[in-house]
Amino acid sequence: MDVSTTIAGVKFTGCFMNASGALCVTREELLALGRSRAGAIVTKSMTVEPRQGNPSPRYYGFSGGSINSMGLPNLGYRAYAELIPELKRFGKPIIASVAGLVEDDFPVIAEAVNAAGPDLIEVNLSCPNIPGKPQIGYDAEASERLMKRVRKIITVPMGVKLPPYFDPAHHALMGNVIGRCGVDFLNLINSVGNGLVVDPKTETVVIKPKGGFGGLGGTIIKPVALANVRAFWKHFDGRMPIIGTGGVMSGLDAFEHVLCGASAVQVGTLLVEEGVDVFGRLEAEFVACLREKGYHSIADCRGRLKEL
Amino acid sequence: MDVSTTIAGVKFTGCFMNASGALCVTREELLALGRSRAGAIVTKSMTVEPRQGNPSPRYYGFSGGSINSMGLPNLGYRAYAELIPELKRFGKPIIASVAGLVEDDFPVIAEAVNAAGPDLIEVNLSCPNIPGKPQIGYDAEASERLMKRVRKIITVPMGVKLPPYFDPAHHALMGNVIGRCGVDFLNLINSVGNGLVVDPKTETVVIKPKGGFGGLGGTIIKPVALANVRAFWKHFDGRMPIIGTGGVMSGLDAFEHVLCGASAVQVGTLLVEEGVDVFGRLEAEFVACLREKGYHSIADCRGRLKEL
Ligand SMILES: Cc1cc2nc3c(=O)[nH]c(=O)nc-3n(C[C@H](O)[C@H](O)[C@H](O)COP(=O)(O)O)c2cc1C
Ligand SMILES: Cc1cc2nc3c(=O)[nH]c(=O)nc-3n(C[C@H](O)[C@H](O)[C@H](O)COP(=O)(O)O)c2cc1C
Ligand SMILES: [Mg+2]
Ligand SMILES: [Mg+2]
Repeated sequence: MDVSTTIAGVKFTGCFMNASGALCVTREELLALGRSRAGAIVTKSMTVEPRQGNPSPRYYGFSGGSINSMGLPNLGYRAYAELIPELKRFGKPIIASVAGLVEDDFPVIAEAVNAAGPDLIEVNLSCPNIPGKPQIGYDAEASERLMKRVRKIITVPMGVKLPPYFDPAHHALMGNVIGRCGVDFLNLINSVGNGLVVDPKTETVVIKPKGGFGGLGGTIIKPVALANVRAFWKHFDGRMPIIGTGGVMSGLDAFEHVLCGASAVQVGTLLVEEGVDVFGRLEAEFVACLREKGYHSIADCRGRLKEL
Repeated sequence: MDVSTTIAGVKFTGCFMNASGALCVTREELLALGRSRAGAIVTKSMTVEPRQGNPSPRYYGFSGGSINSMGLPNLGYRAYAELIPELKRFGKPIIASVAGLVEDDFPVIAEAVNAAGPDLIEVNLSCPNIPGKPQIGYDAEASERLMKRVRKIITVPMGVKLPPYFDPAHHALMGNVIGRCGVDFLNLINSVGNGLVVDPKTETVVIKPKGGFGGLGGTIIKPVALANVRAFWKHFDGRMPIIGTGGVMSGLDAFEHVLCGASAVQVGTLLVEEGVDVFGRLEAEFVACLREKGYHSIADCRGRLKEL
């Protein structure tokens, strides 16, 4: 069974990889991803300066998923730029995730990280967890300005990671913006922003930052993730490569993402909960699913979701 | 134990009621709500003309919740205006839910229905299921214009039912708009719009309208609902009455809504799945929860969620 995939011309030997933020902050974690069965290594979203992030507790897992407000703890872009050559020795694609606290940060980081030679760059327009900073992807004008600035700098395939949208009008608006900015691939979706989980026993929130509000991940966001993959797949008539992210807990969930139009999938909450061994299980389940259905590759079934 | 509550000066003997759309379209259904233990009767969102709604299947329940794209099937406002006097004989508050296909519909319906004497009116700014019509609540200007128009007409307490927001910037923006429009209460939230559920076995979507996209309800949306209740409770410093809607499957879920700031809760998916007997169970569970914790009423614990 062929579970390789191609995104914006870059070949991935496996279609499962970590979602940015999940076990990919430190050199050790990134090396562990290199040694794992993950089909690629995605870095934590990087800022100009190293960051400790928000106060703890800042991640909480529950039966239906997770809530987090990490606040972009990361080593700063210089450290990741230095690590990229070392990570490339694992022979799988490296995706560098570029963030920023203000718009002017993005070109600075993009330039230095692009020079370090990652295989692809993912521009994060959707971090919901910096107090006082709205998700850029909810501002179409700011998103367009930012994408056009970094596009001039980035020479490797450039993707954008978007927050979820909940109305066809927003899918159309952002789809049109993206179509004007030379974007090579999409990553859908970042956390469902600013949810709230309550512990009724203690009558408290479960994470400390922002009064308990945080980004949601895991099973409960799968229908939102699938919807966004499908909506943008349709907007671009199947011609925009999409990484599906959100609610992947099994090979079957990954299959659903592929049916909606994803060429590969990323795993956040599940990876945090189970560790890097999870890639072996996911791949085995996915292969068994395709085999049972008589599909021979991802390309065979990508986007093939049937309507009623 | 006192589970009565007051919203915008109107007394409710019980704090559980149906969410608009759940078993409240026909006269029969509305009478069954009247006979049930529901603390109020909420009508289906009404349009000018009667509507069949979207083609079936248009509702699908799954373990984590539901997806629907009903498309506002309803009897038309004239029928509900006629029914209201009959419904009032049950001695509980009647909430009339007013919708519309275009902005000009809302004042027409509001005027006729207001004259029929419901106890409160809920203006639905958030239906996600009419093909080609965006959720009005995602357009702050259109929402403000509409609320100001109907406010001039409606003489009973007027609430608005909002879609979920996912960024504090949007809570602030809409909170400010609402503060200028003479709104008496909020109902949070309508379905999480335009999700997508996939059946991996048949490789199809599960509902027919809009290519399978529909509004999400039930357990999976609870953290989104709680977040919106909490955000608006804080925006209005606890002075805006809030009906919490979304993910209420048990008395404990209702308690979480109350901790976040809700004065009453509505039940959509659960009611569709279990029928009107559910109100007795919810009330018993909620009472047991308050008793165990030593609270004597909703007012005792409303908004009391603790932060870390
Ligand atoms: C602990 C944690 C940290 C995250 N950090 C980032 C990040 O730095 N950059 C980013 O683009 N997304 C970040 N995310 C979002 C994930 O990459 C992913 O989009 C989201 O969790 C949905 O996937 P899931 O359902 O598999 O968790 C983070 C998620 C978690 C749980
Ligand atoms: C079958 C169905 C029909 C609905 N129709 C309406 C409606 O007409 N007006 C409205 O404001 N909300 C409507 N909703 C949304 C519900 O009132 C409620 O806001 C949503 O389902 C979330 O609550 P839940 O998690 O309890 O389902 C409908 C929901 C369902 C499941
Ligand atoms: Mg973060
Ligand atoms: Mg509807």
